[in-house]
Amino acid sequence: MTTSYQHLTEYFHKIAQINHATTFLQWDQLVMMPPGGNAARADALAELAAIRHELLISSRLKDLIDEASNDLDGSDNKEHTRSIQEMERCRQDAACLPSSLVKAKSLAGSKCEYGWRKQRQENDWSSFLINFKEVVNLARQEAEARYTASPRDLATPYDALLELYCTGDSSALIDEVFTQLKDELPQLIDTITARQTRQSISYIEPLPIDNQKNLSHILMEYLGFDFTKGRLDVSSHPFSTGDSGDQRITTRFRTTDFLESLLATAHETGHASYEGGLPEKWNHLPIGSARNMCIHESQSLLFEKQLFLSKPFFSFFADAIYHFLPQTRAYSIEQLWASCCRVQPSLIRVEADEATYPLHIVLRFEIEKALINGEVEAEDVPEIWNERMKKYLGLSTVGDYKNGCLQDIHWTDGSFGYFPSYTMGALNSAQLFSTIKRKYSNWEERLANGDVSFIRRWLGENIWAKASSMDSQDILLQATGEGTNPIHFLSHLKSRYLEDVSH
Amino acid sequence: MTTSYQHLTEYFHKIAQINHATTFLQWDQLVMMPPGGNAARADALAELAAIRHELLISSRLKDLIDEASNDLDGSDNKEHTRSIQEMERCRQDAACLPSSLVKAKSLAGSKCEYGWRKQRQENDWSSFLINFKEVVNLARQEAEARYTASPRDLATPYDALLELYCTGDSSALIDEVFTQLKDELPQLIDTITARQTRQSISYIEPLPIDNQKNLSHILMEYLGFDFTKGRLDVSSHPFSTGDSGDQRITTRFRTTDFLESLLATAHETGHASYEGGLPEKWNHLPIGSARNMCIHESQSLLFEKQLFLSKPFFSFFADAIYHFLPQTRAYSIEQLWASCCRVQPSLIRVEADEATYPLHIVLRFEIEKALINGEVEAEDVPEIWNERMKKYLGLSTVGDYKNGCLQDIHWTDGSFGYFPSYTMGALNSAQLFSTIKRKYSNWEERLANGDVSFIRRWLGENIWAKASSMDSQDILLQATGEGTNPIHFLSHLKSRYLEDVSH
Repeated sequence: MTTSYQHLTEYFHKIAQINHATTFLQWDQLVMMPPGGNAARADALAELAAIRHELLISSRLKDLIDEASNDLDGSDNKEHTRSIQEMERCRQDAACLPSSLVKAKSLAGSKCEYGWRKQRQENDWSSFLINFKEVVNLARQEAEARYTASPRDLATPYDALLELYCTGDSSALIDEVFTQLKDELPQLIDTITARQTRQSISYIEPLPIDNQKNLSHILMEYLGFDFTKGRLDVSSHPFSTGDSGDQRITTRFRTTDFLESLLATAHETGHASYEGGLPEKWNHLPIGSARNMCIHESQSLLFEKQLFLSKPFFSFFADAIYHFLPQTRAYSIEQLWASCCRVQPSLIRVEADEATYPLHIVLRFEIEKALINGEVEAEDVPEIWNERMKKYLGLSTVGDYKNGCLQDIHWTDGSFGYFPSYTMGALNSAQLFSTIKRKYSNWEERLANGDVSFIRRWLGENIWAKASSMDSQDILLQATGEGTNPIHFLSHLKSRYLEDVSH
Repeated sequence: MTTSYQHLTEYFHKIAQINHATTFLQWDQLVMMPPGGNAARADALAELAAIRHELLISSRLKDLIDEASNDLDGSDNKEHTRSIQEMERCRQDAACLPSSLVKAKSLAGSKCEYGWRKQRQENDWSSFLINFKEVVNLARQEAEARYTASPRDLATPYDALLELYCTGDSSALIDEVFTQLKDELPQLIDTITARQTRQSISYIEPLPIDNQKNLSHILMEYLGFDFTKGRLDVSSHPFSTGDSGDQRITTRFRTTDFLESLLATAHETGHASYEGGLPEKWNHLPIGSARNMCIHESQSLLFEKQLFLSKPFFSFFADAIYHFLPQTRAYSIEQLWASCCRVQPSLIRVEADEATYPLHIVLRFEIEKALINGEVEAEDVPEIWNERMKKYLGLSTVGDYKNGCLQDIHWTDGSFGYFPSYTMGALNSAQLFSTIKRKYSNWEERLANGDVSFIRRWLGENIWAKASSMDSQDILLQATGEGTNPIHFLSHLKSRYLEDVSH
């Protein structure tokens, strides 16, 4: 006899097929599609989104969830209880917004993003502001609607947007964590930059793209990527996507800088390893999805900043670099490594080093939280931006919107609540790697031999296998003994940039 | 006010989005997907097929068609009348089979095809026969169901299967045309082979794949392919697919033979040009689809056999060959050309030259027609195969099933009615090219200068723009003054193989 829970899983299986189609059509759009395909692809993706939305908001799904919940009453099946909760979260996320708001948001977001591409170039804040005000207005409505509908106990409307990306990590928690960063980072950055005498490196001959591609493939193999279950390709912005058994990542290559592509490759391999390591038994179910972006980003940053840039692994990998790019032999391993690790306050987030990056995020978090909760208005943003940039990184953005509050795409289409995940991920990655190092005392020797299997196994058991069966802070607590604690990230910076030992 | 016809087109627009998703997911599966993606992709494609089937057989579509037909009564809107006819054809094709038969067919086809892969290797006819009997049994049921449901006046059940591929070309017409080939070809082939002293060519050094790829790209550009609206990739069997604005073709490369990949590239460019040239105004509607496989194959064979292998164009293109593959300079243009044009009766259809190929098809047409119409049984196939191979090509297949009736995949999953389109396409291509040559007296000079624009323009106006707004024989009649007439193909062979002039 088919149980009510089985009916539910079959329903989500159907939704997963639409997700699969959407995923690979979007990958194709960014990686393979010629420009002539744009119109037809946009139509097809819109139709799939509509089909998915209909499936999620249909009363049939609500009935199935109610039925399965009732059948669970009095049972102690925790897995099914949790699974149904996560299904209901998906349903609610889709169902709680009136369709008029969804449509208005989409239109205002497209308009603002489209205008932004030119307005940013032209440093034209006042034109941007006209569109941006409407985006903020609609995002506040969205936050309010999600806040009201949420079965969880959220503190502010902004928390309802955070739930979309940093699911389970409240603004109060993030605030507390970020406050410690604000307290310590500026002074630490000063100390690091004062000590730093690193020089950038350059090549007279171009570094051939084909050889760089080979190097990225080899790096992925060393990092445990299974090429029977995924691919590496090229796109203008590196990303990771896929479905069970088929993880697609991209990087980009420049003939003047091979390390940029390797760092992106390591980063995306981390994302893909998480997705590829999600448990098969929960395939296609919300409980089996990656937990949230704070955990996702912790995996990519662990592979990039903690693992690849660890001195033992980097030294191991240098053999491959020297082999495929003989031009690099002019530099020592230490010089190559150091060229990835320069700390320097700057205006642009995406170009920032790992020490200054969190302050870019703290600033954005503070502004977007106040914006959504109605404490500041869209027109106030440039002034607050400048004030915080001065305070946190000692840089002015007066009159420089282009390199100030107009630099990011996220807010243009109303994606408020995403930014904190970058830094929560960085903190989590340092905390996880610190636990791994404590647990495996011979970690340096193993990485020096190119053995990352113990890291993958530990992450597999402690992070990947958990999927969405627990809240993110509970996953961290079980894995590391505590929730997100910035001390590990700060220790990592001190160790990497202020100690003269080889890790 | 939205008319009933507009409602119908919106409905087909929705179906087209599902077709789009299916098309590019299948392309990805054959060209990009790692093996690990197989299971998830199969599930997603099955779900999309189910969604499409539901849309086609839904009573809502039937109502919309009835409504739009009624609204047309008494009007003389020929375009809408035809468009609704083609919509009804699509609906009927999906709706006329009971779902139990669709399922049984799919299972029996998968089983037979799966077994065939091994049985062919092992020359094991008797094991194959067990599965094949069921495939034939179900194909007869399918033919009967389609025959009964068809609003068209079909002569035999086999004609109902022909309608799926050779839409509009009856078995009586094909029979008449093929009879002329049977009468003339064997003698003509004898004459050609007696005269032929051509030698194959070979290379000591491998022909680098990258250079061969460049050559294929250049050939496509010369043939008018627009790379902002499509791509060339590699797959184990060359094919062509895509949607409006985005045509994807593939070829395959061997280091020992560059002409094979160029011929496949030219062939698939013909298919893609047809699809890319279908009128935008009928985008997503059945009336706007490619007419049938007899016309589709005429476009690919026109690009491959008529255009690319015409002496003037081939001579023009030889410059590029010599440039990208210096190894080929050991041979004259004439020698390179001749190596593509050897005539020799052989057992395997896919390796056959253009002169003997039609007899492979005549044989299959005769057998499958008799099979479906109940005039012969599955167990009779090897004997008839051998008898006809002797008669048409002078070769025996006694006991050699592997290179006889077990060589093709088509019948294993019940795709009866497809084979004739290969040869109808070859005849149509010669007929169309003959018309073009008559119309453009300076065709040789233009091709010798690499100018194919007049050919594309003529095909665009006379074939591509017609899409499915007319029956295939009417398209040919309007374009060439007559329906399919084998005399043009026979003249082409005589001219190419028996005359000592340079075209």
